[in-house]
Amino acid sequence: MLNVVILGTGNLAKHLFRAFSNSEKVHVVQVVGRNQESLNDFATQTITTHDFNSISDADVYVIAVKDDAIAEVSSYLKNKKGIVVHASGAVEMSAIEPENRGVFYPLQSFTKGKKVDFSTIPICIEANSPQSLKTLRILAETISEKVHEIDSDQRKKLHLAAVFVNNFTNYLYGVGEEICVEEGLPFDLLKPLILETAEKVQTLSPKEAQTGPARRNDEKSMESHLNLLNNKDHTALYKLLSEAIKQAYEKEL
Amino acid sequence: MLNVVILGTGNLAKHLFRAFSNSEKVHVVQVVGRNQESLNDFATQTITTHDFNSISDADVYVIAVKDDAIAEVSSYLKNKKGIVVHASGAVEMSAIEPENRGVFYPLQSFTKGKKVDFSTIPICIEANSPQSLKTLRILAETISEKVHEIDSDQRKKLHLAAVFVNNFTNYLYGVGEEICVEEGLPFDLLKPLILETAEKVQTLSPKEAQTGPARRNDEKSMESHLNLLNNKDHTALYKLLSEAIKQAYEKEL
Repeated sequence: MLNVVILGTGNLAKHLFRAFSNSEKVHVVQVVGRNQESLNDFATQTITTHDFNSISDADVYVIAVKDDAIAEVSSYLKNKKGIVVHASGAVEMSAIEPENRGVFYPLQSFTKGKKVDFSTIPICIEANSPQSLKTLRILAETISEKVHEIDSDQRKKLHLAAVFVNNFTNYLYGVGEEICVEEGLPFDLLKPLILETAEKVQTLSPKEAQTGPARRNDEKSMESHLNLLNNKDHTALYKLLSEAIKQAYEKEL
Repeated sequence: MLNVVILGTGNLAKHLFRAFSNSEKVHVVQVVGRNQESLNDFATQTITTHDFNSISDADVYVIAVKDDAIAEVSSYLKNKKGIVVHASGAVEMSAIEPENRGVFYPLQSFTKGKKVDFSTIPICIEANSPQSLKTLRILAETISEKVHEIDSDQRKKLHLAAVFVNNFTNYLYGVGEEICVEEGLPFDLLKPLILETAEKVQTLSPKEAQTGPARRNDEKSMESHLNLLNNKDHTALYKLLSEAIKQAYEKEL
């Protein structure tokens, strides 16, 4: 049985708490957070405190707070023997002050109130000793089938890649929605296509899955699309993305 | 019972054939195509011909060929009484030569060999008479629960929106893959995130679902991401997309 303290009460903290609570091999002994109202969500299920000087002893301390606050929160754990980890994709392991440090980064986008199947979520772990790494692997494997050892440099790149496939992709969904709404069409029309596009690359490389006018270098279609666009940001995006796709495939044509 | 002739033997023709064949209310009386080898795929299940001057009589003729070939294929159907439709998002209904014309556009990306659930795919119909429109609606409803009457101008915009959420999104998946591969990381790490991003907007508007450094106007994170990028196309995309997201949300910050 691994004893865990979670520091933070936001979205990620809630999802981690739920996942750990479903495992028989983990006991969340305490949740620590500044916000009393958010702490109340955990209070029926474990011990909670807003006093960062009253943190319980545990095997692993998971800091699930905003990137900027990780270093400060970790400073309250300087005298602890357990492993202190953060759960961020973008922050270096060295941001953690205590010597027994690591990273426990679940690579997923968590939405308030939306349950996720943790077993399929990749958990990227890093630690500064083989023993800590072993413990983090055991902890990660209690909730996920996909545990990867990844160093801070790799994790930063992974986080950057995630911005492209998540944040930027979502923005393109928004452009699709705007174009629909302008034309009095429901965004619902695009939803099955959005899902299928994501499902396709679960088995096919995006390189193979690429279709569309730019892929075929179909100048006529691209020209008529550009004539339909009346938002200059959308026009700039259309041109840049089409040009990038054209260049990637022009050798094949 | 509606009798249908399918013209074309590609991906879309195959998917439509399978969907119609599963309905008791539709009989695909013939498949017409130039490519004898492709016709063989249909030959055990219906009558096939490569002779465009021997097309059977039917209630609806579905032209499922490349956009550029639609007009020419339709010219072989000039003397037919049934409704002649194409299945393209980008081509105007008027490209069809016969007078009794329409459009039957399933808004989805079809992959060779990958089965799709047609019942959830929006089918966009258009016709030049109320009677034909009624027939196309009956036909569409035999395979899908989502049938929409959409005119040629709306359909063009919809097709443009589809390019953003499908072709361009897939390109961003490819960028994510490239960044992973460069760093010796498996693209598999990003797949659950890709799926979740698509699933999120099935119930949430992309505007609400937006997250990431640009959404928060987190200059420090964006700067460090730009420092990690060493492909100038990726850098240009990162800047343009981040700027667009920043502008869309800066009023809220």
